[in-house]
Amino acid sequence: MSKKYNVAIVGASGAVGREFLRLLHQRDFPIASLRLFGSERSAGKKIIFRDSEIEIELLKEGDDFKDIDIAFTSAGAGVSKKFADTITRHGAVMIDNSSAFRMDEDVPLVVPEVNGEDAKHRPRGIIGNPNCTTIQMLVAVNPIYKISPILKIRVSTYQSASGAGASAMAELEKQISQYASGSPLTVEKFPHQLLLNLIPQVDIFLDNDYTKEEMKMYNETRKILHDDRIEVSATCVRVPVLRAHSEAIWVETESPVDISDVRRAMESAEGVVLADNPAEALYPMPFAAAGSDPVFVGRLRKDIASPTGITLWTVGDQIRKGAALNAVQIAEYLIRQKNI
Amino acid sequence: MSKKYNVAIVGASGAVGREFLRLLHQRDFPIASLRLFGSERSAGKKIIFRDSEIEIELLKEGDDFKDIDIAFTSAGAGVSKKFADTITRHGAVMIDNSSAFRMDEDVPLVVPEVNGEDAKHRPRGIIGNPNCTTIQMLVAVNPIYKISPILKIRVSTYQSASGAGASAMAELEKQISQYASGSPLTVEKFPHQLLLNLIPQVDIFLDNDYTKEEMKMYNETRKILHDDRIEVSATCVRVPVLRAHSEAIWVETESPVDISDVRRAMESAEGVVLADNPAEALYPMPFAAAGSDPVFVGRLRKDIASPTGITLWTVGDQIRKGAALNAVQIAEYLIRQKNI
Repeated sequence: MSKKYNVAIVGASGAVGREFLRLLHQRDFPIASLRLFGSERSAGKKIIFRDSEIEIELLKEGDDFKDIDIAFTSAGAGVSKKFADTITRHGAVMIDNSSAFRMDEDVPLVVPEVNGEDAKHRPRGIIGNPNCTTIQMLVAVNPIYKISPILKIRVSTYQSASGAGASAMAELEKQISQYASGSPLTVEKFPHQLLLNLIPQVDIFLDNDYTKEEMKMYNETRKILHDDRIEVSATCVRVPVLRAHSEAIWVETESPVDISDVRRAMESAEGVVLADNPAEALYPMPFAAAGSDPVFVGRLRKDIASPTGITLWTVGDQIRKGAALNAVQIAEYLIRQKNI
Repeated sequence: MSKKYNVAIVGASGAVGREFLRLLHQRDFPIASLRLFGSERSAGKKIIFRDSEIEIELLKEGDDFKDIDIAFTSAGAGVSKKFADTITRHGAVMIDNSSAFRMDEDVPLVVPEVNGEDAKHRPRGIIGNPNCTTIQMLVAVNPIYKISPILKIRVSTYQSASGAGASAMAELEKQISQYASGSPLTVEKFPHQLLLNLIPQVDIFLDNDYTKEEMKMYNETRKILHDDRIEVSATCVRVPVLRAHSEAIWVETESPVDISDVRRAMESAEGVVLADNPAEALYPMPFAAAGSDPVFVGRLRKDIASPTGITLWTVGDQIRKGAALNAVQIAEYLIRQKNI
């Protein structure tokens, strides 16, 4: 009988936390025991998993993680920083969905299809799960990168409400009801109304007038690809969509690449579904991609502004591949590699 | 007393046609007489303009345009082609919002802030009004172009429902009501549901896997700027927004340009409003720009992927500057230049 693992989810009641539960079930993750942790607000609530009811325990300092093998954490950077020692002290592998440790040198940052092997070297017992927009972009462009190194990426995002959590999704749905009934719209989760609008700001602004979200795409890409030559200029925009992110991407490669080679590479690439048939109006859309696992790629064509350019459109479920699924896949990779 | 003009609007009952009426009134256009034309479906309907009621006349071959000085046409490329001779035969200047003649060598294609003087040379009496996405992009990047020629543009669009007409806007609003009441959504005006979705296709696909809309941005830009070096790679996406288009733009200039020089140029550029203050979460948004005249520019910064690159975000009302306003401004330019 193959090995089973004691698993913990920290932030179990959030949008990503709930997705962890669905994924562990759907993917038949080898669970020996499952414990759920949360803040004072969610502690005591009960969640059904398979045939049993599990109570969310209060996350606190102490020895609660003594027997845990794998902890999936998604409760914000502050919580991850505060409890990293508590979680990892007795040997649990912490796969962290927050931005707390992503750029730390002694924490690998992993997209399994791109740099799975990095997960094996984790001196602090922590593995970083990259930002959703980075994961999706790298899964989509990695097949090109394998043909020729990519030197530049320009990317504009069309990010769904889910990136700001379950309550942000609920607010967008509420705005629909309010708009339909002619009531004033509730605007709390975003700086501005999202329904029938676009907000060209995700996360806070930095000194170079890029947002933190945009610079994550720059910095995380270089770390994951181990490539300090690649430069990423991103414009991140929130759009009135519930849970799948889309990205329009231009890459410039070191050597010219043939578009038919890229197409072939996409067709066989792990984690990618090529949905690209202009003749039949087939291309990825967030409405269709919500709730599914792959990174969908379409609108694949030469960049007519550059002899070494390729442009494409990608859509992926932000809560799945953009967060929970990628973290679970990191754990599955370690299990396959007998590294845990 | 300054000269007044006999004006005609063809396609008076459409979204752009109605905007012509509002603009002619608001801008106090020097009208001697105003006649409205439409298809059999709208002929006979009456429209209030200032203090009088004007009946929409059936557009037909004949001498109806004998005394017209300026005809604003916005009834689709088929109608423009069929009736161009009827409209211009007796000397009327036809300012055409359709794509019918835009790329014809003997038809100038004009954005007044960029190439107003081209409007003076119109051997066929026709002046083309560019596509909405091109107008907005060129007003936004022209201040940069004046500092150094632009060699490359990558642009992704976030196009509102209005680009597909008044009935498409109505369908998006209907989808909101239907979603709120749990009813199935009506999907007729676009190939897919637009509410809570994105459709990465505007207009039909061409042989190079770009859409016609995307290639308009390439071809019209070169024509308007009289520059065959500039190359534009566009990804055009329909978003669930009512009437303002947004664009994320990356330009590469021939010589490096200083971002503070660009900022100063934007501040004084005709037709541009710079709305760019990250510290106060100030940037252009379609919700705020709907119904107003300028092209709003924000998120202005260095392209960190290129030493000669600038990136920016622009929002403009598609029915105004993207269509009716630009056409009226062409006429106003000719009047100021005493060229009509």
